[in-house]
Amino acid sequence: MASTAFAKKFGALVREHREELGLSQEALGEAARLHRTHISLIERGQRSVRLETIEALSKALKVQPAELMPEIRV
Amino acid sequence: MASTAFAKKFGALVREHREELGLSQEALGEAARLHRTHISLIERGQRSVRLETIEALSKALKVQPAELMPEIRV
Repeated sequence: MASTAFAKKFGALVREHREELGLSQEALGEAARLHRTHISLIERGQRSVRLETIEALSKALKVQPAELMPEIRV
Repeated sequence: MASTAFAKKFGALVREHREELGLSQEALGEAARLHRTHISLIERGQRSVRLETIEALSKALKVQPAELMPEIRV
């Protein structure tokens, strides 16, 4: 799918939290049961993530799912 | 896809915010450019939602995406 600004911001938040934990993409992939390549695509906003993946990433990153959500103009 | 506890909680939050705004499922569907049937499935946790849909629902519900995220144990 085409990357969107929202997906890119989500990916940047995933990367930020992963780096805070000192995890490699491979280690995060193992913790979240996703392939390292998938993590790389997510972090670049090139993969449209589903709810289950948001949940799995949150658990692996030890943050609330809300913390991975970009802000929007409402 | 099989419904998960996380998807059900997400759907319940969507419904809660929709009802707070006094919107029908049809009106939310129009605002978020989703079919009413899709809204119904999402609210029951029977549809795995992607990032773009979370963004579209948040905009239509005038809430931050973080407010639609269920809490998890971390």
